[in-house]
Amino acid sequence: MGLGMTSRITAIYHVTATAATIESRAQGIAVEQSVEMPLAAIDDPRVLEEIVGQVQSITDLGQGVYEVRIGLAVETTGLEAGQLINMLYGNTSIQDDTVLWDAEFPEEVFAAFKGPNVGLEGLRADKAPGRAMTCGALKPQGLPVARLADLARRFADAGPDFIKDDHGHADQAFSPYAERVPAIARAVRESNARTGFKTRYLPSLNGNLDQMRAQIRLGQAEGLDTFMIAPMIAGFSTFHTLVRENPTTAFFSHPTMTGASRIAPAFLHGKLFRLLGADAVIYTNHGGRFGFTRETCRAIARNATKPWGGLKGAVPVPAGGMTQDRVPEMVECYGADVILLIGGGLLLARERLTEETRAFVEAVAALPAPPGPGAEEVA
Amino acid sequence: MGLGMTSRITAIYHVTATAATIESRAQGIAVEQSVEMPLAAIDDPRVLEEIVGQVQSITDLGQGVYEVRIGLAVETTGLEAGQLINMLYGNTSIQDDTVLWDAEFPEEVFAAFKGPNVGLEGLRADKAPGRAMTCGALKPQGLPVARLADLARRFADAGPDFIKDDHGHADQAFSPYAERVPAIARAVRESNARTGFKTRYLPSLNGNLDQMRAQIRLGQAEGLDTFMIAPMIAGFSTFHTLVRENPTTAFFSHPTMTGASRIAPAFLHGKLFRLLGADAVIYTNHGGRFGFTRETCRAIARNATKPWGGLKGAVPVPAGGMTQDRVPEMVECYGADVILLIGGGLLLARERLTEETRAFVEAVAALPAPPGPGAEEVA
Repeated sequence: MGLGMTSRITAIYHVTATAATIESRAQGIAVEQSVEMPLAAIDDPRVLEEIVGQVQSITDLGQGVYEVRIGLAVETTGLEAGQLINMLYGNTSIQDDTVLWDAEFPEEVFAAFKGPNVGLEGLRADKAPGRAMTCGALKPQGLPVARLADLARRFADAGPDFIKDDHGHADQAFSPYAERVPAIARAVRESNARTGFKTRYLPSLNGNLDQMRAQIRLGQAEGLDTFMIAPMIAGFSTFHTLVRENPTTAFFSHPTMTGASRIAPAFLHGKLFRLLGADAVIYTNHGGRFGFTRETCRAIARNATKPWGGLKGAVPVPAGGMTQDRVPEMVECYGADVILLIGGGLLLARERLTEETRAFVEAVAALPAPPGPGAEEVA
Repeated sequence: MGLGMTSRITAIYHVTATAATIESRAQGIAVEQSVEMPLAAIDDPRVLEEIVGQVQSITDLGQGVYEVRIGLAVETTGLEAGQLINMLYGNTSIQDDTVLWDAEFPEEVFAAFKGPNVGLEGLRADKAPGRAMTCGALKPQGLPVARLADLARRFADAGPDFIKDDHGHADQAFSPYAERVPAIARAVRESNARTGFKTRYLPSLNGNLDQMRAQIRLGQAEGLDTFMIAPMIAGFSTFHTLVRENPTTAFFSHPTMTGASRIAPAFLHGKLFRLLGADAVIYTNHGGRFGFTRETCRAIARNATKPWGGLKGAVPVPAGGMTQDRVPEMVECYGADVILLIGGGLLLARERLTEETRAFVEAVAALPAPPGPGAEEVA
């Protein structure tokens, strides 16, 4: 089979196999992720030449793992977000000898999906240069709206750059979105007016596309320009649709349900979510409650921020059990192009929430930040 | 902490741990899947009593694996599909010592989500009793519309119960949905009129909620009443919204991107997709290209078809490299309440497609089917 003239994505898989089996496994993935049928049953030369996936290379990585690079025809994706992940990993995700490790996209993919609306530069625009950014989280779900708004006010009085909904906040009876979000937005707005800080509140979007659209409109009516969404729950199409429908709005991706470790985190958070339009990507930092290594986390940050396909950068947001004593080490790890998110660790201060959050904000502001992982390579 | 009066879902996890660590891991999951913050930072007694997840039991399953049952407050789900999976597994999916094994739902969950529209009984309604059902697949993607319609006609002439789109068919330039689906629907309709068979064609839905709604309307205008959707790509909210908006329409779920083996297949396909409204659930059968065991496959079929929460049954559709010589064994395994899907295996017949499909349909019709796995237990 020749390499053909069709434009292709190179999907990169890590496959556990033996020297005797890897060639047939690689060919099997190429077929599974394209025509999903025996090639002997295909009599159309154009399909064989331009649609069937093509094994581009197989590299022995040692320890029984091979890198397999497969060319997938761009036209099979229809340049649509859900179909993109369907073609990249769909059925092969069910074969547990595989990891979707990475992908290389041709220009037309970047041009079609477009990436972040405001990106790293936009989110940093009104911040002092050379420092990391900060974020707090409104928890727990179950509190009534008035208590969440009070919590938001006490956070905002300390001037963090962002305050996010817990990802458990949806549209529950105990704090319906349509009551919760205006009340919190008002509390933060009033605090900003009083303090002069520019804290942004991010509500968590939930439900279906119509519901999320209404939630964005409601938030925008309250002056909000930043929202959080969980792409693995919303669906890639829903996520991408909302990003493109709201070109001046920023979106933080939340990692809930990304747990299939069979998509490499550096690819999923650092590239795929960025491609679809995450301005900031929340993920579970090393040394917290989750198992990512420091190397994985820096790879996520590198992919999110490095020059790539002409897209804006996305801000890495390492989280998941972070505490203030980790601030220097995290700034050392990520540099200035990061949002440091401390959730429960600040809430433990209870009545001293504002003071603790203020100490966090000031500690970050005072820390000179080295270049982040994104500066390490030029794409 | 008392057990409280709040209505709870029992989420069941399998956790790899040691006797020394399992209690704190179980408590960690209970917190992660509810308030996601240190309990010491919560001063609201109602949240502590009614919202925080509760460890109900821990059972040593041997070999370093424990069953952990956790009561999650129904109200945290907002009775919404996306938020349901967020609360069941969200962040915990990122902790690789866990498997979401199963869940027990209270009545209000069944009442809210409602399950299949037509279900097993509806899909069987116009079939001869006591036989399995049959399905073929239109492949490969990349063929022009006229060739796919011709393929559909030749399939339909053999009278299988269903013909489905390949899950790779989306809305690509080579066969746009709005051209492909009417042409195929017409070919099948005309074949049915000529032969007297009642073959149903299922298009594959793709894109966002608006696009899927338009695709359903377009299909319905062509007389179609059955569609295929991939819940892990569409998003649970999108899937559930479409099911409830189209109460006389049947939906087959497709397993693409379900690969996180950390949700037990018997739960995901057999219960969760059924709860949301899959009338038929396609999954990868044992002995084909995928790794599920016969036991796992029968557990999926058992969950899909057994009496459960007053919901209609969903038809198991084992697939993925099936061939005609496996028909007797598959009917022995699944009984009559199954749709036998052969994709590439039939397409290999090429110019003899109709004859091979006819032989498949007749072989199934002639086979007496034993009771399926769903008959083995009474819920």
